[in-house]
Parts: sequence; structure tokens; C-alpha cells
Amino acid sequence: MIDTIRYEKGSIYIIDQTKLPTELVVIEIDDVKECWDAIKELKVRGAPAIGIAAAYGVVVGVKDIDENNFENFYKEFKKVSDYLASSRPTAVNLFWALERMNKVALDNKELPISEIKSALEKEAILIHKEDEETCRKIGENGLEVLKDGMTVLTHCNAGRLATAKYGTALAPIYIAKEKGMNIKVFADETRPLLQGSRLTAFELQEAGVDVTLITDNMAAMVMGEGKIDLVIVGCDRVAANGDTANKIGTYGVALLAKAHNIPFYIAGPLSTIDLDATTKEEIPIEERGAEEIINGFGKQTAPSGIKVYNPAFDVTPHDLIAGIITEKGIARPPYNISLKKLFEK
Amino acid sequence: MIDTIRYEKGSIYIIDQTKLPTELVVIEIDDVKECWDAIKELKVRGAPAIGIAAAYGVVVGVKDIDENNFENFYKEFKKVSDYLASSRPTAVNLFWALERMNKVALDNKELPISEIKSALEKEAILIHKEDEETCRKIGENGLEVLKDGMTVLTHCNAGRLATAKYGTALAPIYIAKEKGMNIKVFADETRPLLQGSRLTAFELQEAGVDVTLITDNMAAMVMGEGKIDLVIVGCDRVAANGDTANKIGTYGVALLAKAHNIPFYIAGPLSTIDLDATTKEEIPIEERGAEEIINGFGKQTAPSGIKVYNPAFDVTPHDLIAGIITEKGIARPPYNISLKKLFEK
Repeated sequence: MIDTIRYEKGSIYIIDQTKLPTELVVIEIDDVKECWDAIKELKVRGAPAIGIAAAYGVVVGVKDIDENNFENFYKEFKKVSDYLASSRPTAVNLFWALERMNKVALDNKELPISEIKSALEKEAILIHKEDEETCRKIGENGLEVLKDGMTVLTHCNAGRLATAKYGTALAPIYIAKEKGMNIKVFADETRPLLQGSRLTAFELQEAGVDVTLITDNMAAMVMGEGKIDLVIVGCDRVAANGDTANKIGTYGVALLAKAHNIPFYIAGPLSTIDLDATTKEEIPIEERGAEEIINGFGKQTAPSGIKVYNPAFDVTPHDLIAGIITEKGIARPPYNISLKKLFEK
Repeated sequence: MIDTIRYEKGSIYIIDQTKLPTELVVIEIDDVKECWDAIKELKVRGAPAIGIAAAYGVVVGVKDIDENNFENFYKEFKKVSDYLASSRPTAVNLFWALERMNKVALDNKELPISEIKSALEKEAILIHKEDEETCRKIGENGLEVLKDGMTVLTHCNAGRLATAKYGTALAPIYIAKEKGMNIKVFADETRPLLQGSRLTAFELQEAGVDVTLITDNMAAMVMGEGKIDLVIVGCDRVAANGDTANKIGTYGVALLAKAHNIPFYIAGPLSTIDLDATTKEEIPIEERGAEEIINGFGKQTAPSGIKVYNPAFDVTPHDLIAGIITEKGIARPPYNISLKKLFEK
């Protein structure tokens, strides 16, 4: 398996996820503009992977800054960082990663610029490495709710393609597989950008997991037929009260799960939890262009000039969520208490 | 506006709906095989339109039967009819129309074969004409629940492209427009075959109705944002207790509507009500091929060889349905009583 994201000698290498599942293309990113484009155009996507890409984006963005005093360097650093921050508004990991990079810059302000650059590179590599460990722990903690023989429904892609490795929502499934458990998955295709059919189906098939692809609007029927034991999805931002922004369609899946008494779980690293956002009202929702719906796949599927509404995310209210699986354990309601506690561990 | 379906001198002319919205192509159907293909491949679709097409399919199918005695003619007639019945299993209008044609054949068995053929042609034209009147009445009856300024969400296409004219679910919207009312519509795109984006968005836009296209998985968010006052969808078969088979995704929309206290209505002619099916268990559900999901947009969007589940319909249980709008009025729960009463009117 090729790494979702890899850093080597000043260059970032990512799988161009817009080309999957028919082409497995790795692209090289050498400057901050290319990194911004890759995030904006979803060549790299998934909250944790966006964080990693942004951290590396800072590294490639500052490498050619030719300044000798910190103040001038930091001014350029901030330009790079602010630019990357403008790529996608909803995933909090982007801002979390950039904030870690910012702290490293400031903490090392007394050092020569070249050493600051080295420190930033080390931090980005650390963020990357930590993500892999974090995802593995999410997977292990998720086994608390995942029993042998279960069938899990998931939405969008919160797998290894969304992270350094293992994924978040799919991590328990990969760890279960490592342990010889028999877990089946139903993957929503996840319109408009089909991360479910293009990415989740692809990576689970590659890993030898029994996966069945459905369109988003089949989830209710599949649940009604008793085929689903558990729902696990990822997250782009979790508010302090547990309200969770994730790929558009997640809120609907949560409501359908509730109607069928199927436990609905969120999985994500602590870096996705934004205690500064107290409720869903404080999570900004990215709206994307009409073309993704009208002309999503090289063929026009709606009349020209049609009005389109295309929010990229929705917010699932905390009362629909059975638990939030993190690297520090599973938070349970009431989330305004349990989420805070995770950060104290 | 070009007619969805038109019959002239032994030929059927239909809009090839698989070509919409980018091409408006009318195809001529001269034999029963072409008619079967058109139904099977969804060139003509929508429960009422399938019924009309099948009736005309019988007419073109029997025109060249060269038999002089009724028994031999009827044997050939039955072959034609059984063949058409095998095209799609879920929509009951198909069987209803074929049964009407069968009755005409039997009722006229004493007449010369040429006159039986004429009687069959008249019956098909009558089925077609009645459908237009029926849809208009559905539209007028639907105004009971549709108030000026409302926004309606609909799923799939139950508009004029699914019927002779007006449609079923969209009929109240067209009649409201004729009366100068201001009604907005949100249309689910309706994967896998995108009848919502290709057909509903197309025909409402053509009629000057304010329509916004969303992907299926956005319906929950749009409802949560308070944008929807009412849901109206069509139906392919209604059981005696009100359980309703309709395009895949309808059941999910009904559950989401319930979760947001939005009234959920079915609209359809009495020919869609199958009192012989007592509950949803007796409605056969058509399963279609994986290619519609893997290669639906002219571009492969899922990995080769992936397992796919592709039911074309689901069944919404009667307790999620606020009313069933028909040409004889709106049936309300309990449906096992109210639906029977409609047939007595």
C-alpha cells in the first residue's frame, strides 16, 4: 500500500485522491500554492490528512524565505500559514496543525532562521507520526463497541486515505481484521464527490475487507432490512457539547440510525475536537460550487443553469451520537463533561 | 412542451428519458420488443407512463398477428402481454393496464379480429386520456395540503415525464402555478439514475417553477434548516394498508420528514393502489445491476469488482404517511379503510 501522504527532502508526495479509484497517481508538491490547491481540490482530504498536509505545506512554504531576522521571517511565515488556512474552513485539524507550527516558530524565535526551519520540519513530521499512532489507538478503543460478526455502515471516507494510516472511522475495522475478526462494511457512496465509492470501497477492497457499496439513499432500506449493527463515521469538527460536523449526509444517517435503534458512533482524534466551539452554531459550513452536482463525473446530469444547494458538511446534534471514539477512549454523553475530561487525561 | 408519450397510426413516440437533460430525443416504437426495451431501460418510466406505454405496447404487438380465430389470436395476444409484464416487476400500473387490455380482448371475443384490434387501440388511447384527467384531479385534490408560499421537497420524478401530463407528486405544484400560487421545490437528485436532477429539475425548470437541486444526502440538512414545509412523492405500488413502494430513498425521506415534523404525502392514481397486496411483504422489489452505481455517470466511480446492492425501490410503511393524494381525494389513516372507500366512490 502506497502512503496517503509522504514527506521527503522538502517535497510532499500525496496520492491524488480525485483520480481514485481508476488511477493511483502520486503527485509531488514543492510549494505552498500546490499544497493549497491539493487541499482545496480534495486531492488530499479527510480532516487528519488535511492537518498533516498543511503542516508540511508550511515547511515547503517557508523553505525559500530568504530573511535573516525573525520578525521578517515570521511575517512571511504568517503569510504562508494564513494562506493555507484559507483552503477549507470546516475541518478544525487544519487550524490545529497550523497553530502547532506557529507555536514552534515562536518558541524558537531566538534561533537562527535555518534552525527554525528545521524545527518546523521536525514538528510536521511529528504531527504526521503522531497521527498514525493516534489512529491506531482509535482503532483499538473502537473495539469496545465492535463485536465479531458485526456489519458496520459508514459514510464518506474516514479511512487510511483520510489520515496517515488506519483512518478514524475505519480504524476499528482494520484493527479488527488484524485480530482475525469478521467484520462486514456497507459504504455509502457519498455524493457529490463519491468519497465512499471512490475511496472507502477502494481502500477496504484493497485491504480484503468485505465491503458492499450502496448509494446514500439506500442506507434507510439497508437498516430497515436489519443488515446494519453499528454506524461509525469520521468527523471534521466536534464542538464542546458533542455536536459534530462531518461530510454532508452524516446528519441524515444519524437520524436513520436512531429510527432503527442502531448505535451511531463518531471516530476522530482529539485534534478534531474544538472546545472553543460550544455548539453547532459556531462551526462554519463550507458551501461548494454547483458544478460538483451538475457535472460531477464528466457528464452533465442536470439541466444547465439549474439552482443548486451544495453544503459540503452538515452537523449532527450530540443527542444522536452514542459515543465519540478517540485515541484517549470513547467519550459518552453528556459530552460537555466527557470531552473536556479527555483533554485532561 | 413535447408529450412524454404519444400514439399515432400504430406507432408510439416517447421522449427518451435516458438522454435528458442534455438531449431531448423522441424515439419511435413500432414493435413490442422496442416497447419492452424502452420500459426496461427506463426510456419511459414512472408508474403511470409505464402503464400507458404497456397498453400501447399491446396495440403495436398485436397489429401484425395474422390469425382469424379468437383462440389463436388470444394465444398470441397473451404472449405479447406476458412479455410486456416481464419488463419491470414493481410498478403495479403495468399489470393494471395489461389487465384492462386483457378484459377488452375477452369482452370482444365474438367480433372479427380486426375489430378486436381496434377495440384494443381505443382502450389504450382511453387509458392514456384518463391518465391526463386523473393527474389533473390529483393536482387539484393536492391543493388541500399545499398553501401559497410553501416549499415542497420531492424525490425521484413523479412529474409530467412520469405520466401523460401534470404528473402525480408534481401535479399539485403545476396546478398551484396555474392558479398563480408561489411554490418552491427542492428536488433530490435520486441516485443511481438521477431522475431528480435529470427529469424533475428539467421539467420544473422548463415550466418556470423555482426549483433547487440537492443530492439525496442533503435532504436531512435542508429539513433541519427549516426550508421544507411538505414532502410529496409519487408511488409505484400502494398496498391495501397504505405501505408504499416508490423509488429507492423514499423510505429514508419519510423517516427524515417524521424526525422534522414535516408532513409526508404520497400522490398517485387509484391504478397504483393494489388492494390485493395487503402489506409491504407482498410487493416485489426489483434489484438492478451494479453498473448503474459503479459506472453511472459515464465514468467509473467505484473500484472494479466491488460488491454492490442496488434495490430500485423501497417501501415506506403506512405510519410514516400523512395522506395519499388520489384523483378521488386524499386518503388518510387508517388506510385499510380509507383506500377501500376510494374505490367505492
